[in-house]
Amino acid sequence: MADVARRAGVSMATASRALSNHPHVASQTRARVLAAAEQLSYVISPEASRLAGGVTGRVAVVVPHIARWFFATLLEGLEWVLRDAGLDVLLYHVGDATDRRDFFQRLPARRKVDAVVVVGMPIRDEERDRLELMGVHIVAAGGQVENYPYVAIDDLSAGRQAVDHLLFLRHRRIGMIAAVDPAEPGWPATPGRTLAYTAALAEAGLPADPDLVVTVPWGGLSGADAMSRLLSLRDPPTAVYAHSDEVALGAIRTLRRAGLRIPEDMSVIGIDDHPMAELADLTTIAQPVHDQGRLAGRLLLSLLAGEPGGGGVTVPTHLVVRGSTAPPRV
Amino acid sequence: MADVARRAGVSMATASRALSNHPHVASQTRARVLAAAEQLSYVISPEASRLAGGVTGRVAVVVPHIARWFFATLLEGLEWVLRDAGLDVLLYHVGDATDRRDFFQRLPARRKVDAVVVVGMPIRDEERDRLELMGVHIVAAGGQVENYPYVAIDDLSAGRQAVDHLLFLRHRRIGMIAAVDPAEPGWPATPGRTLAYTAALAEAGLPADPDLVVTVPWGGLSGADAMSRLLSLRDPPTAVYAHSDEVALGAIRTLRRAGLRIPEDMSVIGIDDHPMAELADLTTIAQPVHDQGRLAGRLLLSLLAGEPGGGGVTVPTHLVVRGSTAPPRV
Repeated sequence: MADVARRAGVSMATASRALSNHPHVASQTRARVLAAAEQLSYVISPEASRLAGGVTGRVAVVVPHIARWFFATLLEGLEWVLRDAGLDVLLYHVGDATDRRDFFQRLPARRKVDAVVVVGMPIRDEERDRLELMGVHIVAAGGQVENYPYVAIDDLSAGRQAVDHLLFLRHRRIGMIAAVDPAEPGWPATPGRTLAYTAALAEAGLPADPDLVVTVPWGGLSGADAMSRLLSLRDPPTAVYAHSDEVALGAIRTLRRAGLRIPEDMSVIGIDDHPMAELADLTTIAQPVHDQGRLAGRLLLSLLAGEPGGGGVTVPTHLVVRGSTAPPRV
Repeated sequence: MADVARRAGVSMATASRALSNHPHVASQTRARVLAAAEQLSYVISPEASRLAGGVTGRVAVVVPHIARWFFATLLEGLEWVLRDAGLDVLLYHVGDATDRRDFFQRLPARRKVDAVVVVGMPIRDEERDRLELMGVHIVAAGGQVENYPYVAIDDLSAGRQAVDHLLFLRHRRIGMIAAVDPAEPGWPATPGRTLAYTAALAEAGLPADPDLVVTVPWGGLSGADAMSRLLSLRDPPTAVYAHSDEVALGAIRTLRRAGLRIPEDMSVIGIDDHPMAELADLTTIAQPVHDQGRLAGRLLLSLLAGEPGGGGVTVPTHLVVRGSTAPPRV
């Protein structure tokens, strides 16, 4: 380290900070130190490179899905902020009940992370106890978890924006395709997005018709099936609100196959603003997913720096009008 | 550890193996040991839990994109195999030239992984030198990298399957939308998928018309733009081969907006079998992406176990006929 500092013309402390990616080092200085280290092929020992704020320099990120757009996009934003702060991301996919049990049993025993971020999943009481054992900061991203600082959208508000848009267009017979994660049937997103529908219809003085609500496992093909069920009603809806864009895109496939025009014969709205929504000209409620990851990363950095962590951050959603919604035919 | 072993009624060695997720422990025994450890709140020290085969128990996975379907799906398969073997995944996203330089400068200096998996990206000579410094195993997944064991599809063969299908349907004027990653213009996927088109047309005795080839940055909206350019030709193609499904889905949006019917007025084929391809009824060349991740994980485990690593694994692709391709109108 002394050789690196000498060669770069900086103090040992500055060289150390530059190599550990400390935020308060000018980029020119850091470049000079990195160049000197490179010339000397200086190898930082894992011990020496530990951050002042943490112990291991690593954060565990726990996700119930990796390949789905929402989770992968949030993870990209989160990794970006943590890496920029010199923290490494340990990725844990807990896909089913066995994975979850295994993860929560073993992680606390490993003592090898400074913090944990749980993405888009609920934490059960016994899991909470295991996390507490670790004594590290815990942040929830992409969904609220009781007692943990969180970054998430307001699902009730997002659902209201969707159904209110259909009501504004004067639809009176509105169907809902509710999507649940089979592994997490109790996750709050579903109640919030469902309650929004019930409340909006009630406020508009419309009757609650259980035939108009179809609940399916999350996914595009499920959305296609759900739309078939809505089309088989004696009195089908004139508009459909889907809990997510991927489900809505499945519903659109069924409508196309049935020779129905969108939006003339049926309006469709989703939630997310998935990249495919733009390509499919789908009206949707946009949520900033990459931002949720970045904000969760920043929230975690504040906690690691010893700053007081508030209860949470709710990020706004907004209506994106495209070509899949219009007033019903008279 | 002695307490855990005694309580579980096993030897110290067995208890240690069970806690470090060693493969040769019966699941009942492991459950008993975990229960005993749980009762005693036994906390494994990071040192004690190190795998026999490695030093750190961690693998670095380097990806140029996280949020894109291909990369996220491959990562899901890879993480599944590594986690099952008791290895942790450190995720590094190298999105642009600065990230890459920073990553390759710093990773070797950290000495904190047993192996590196590079996903769907080329490695430059100077980066190769940095990796060599680490003296760990390196595997390429989702694309071949010279001198490293790899798991990938044969892009030339996949491209031939796509273009040969269009030729079999008797298309004679076939357009190509070539997608390049702006950050990685030289990545072999592009040449392979492009060479396939050139070779197939030449073998069929068709002239090479440069107007029929449009090269765009990867993405759905780019595909939409590329299709507009093909439609603006005096003599547009009757079929279009896109380098990826997401690009093909963009092309389909343009065709729909132009009031053209698919496949009657224009056939479209992609590569990937993205989940949205099924919803959009897109004919495509399917590649097993989750499998590429899993196979890369297994290849890495073999190398870590000291088994000889072959040159690589090429996974097969196959045609999936859906509703977006048909013979041209006479």
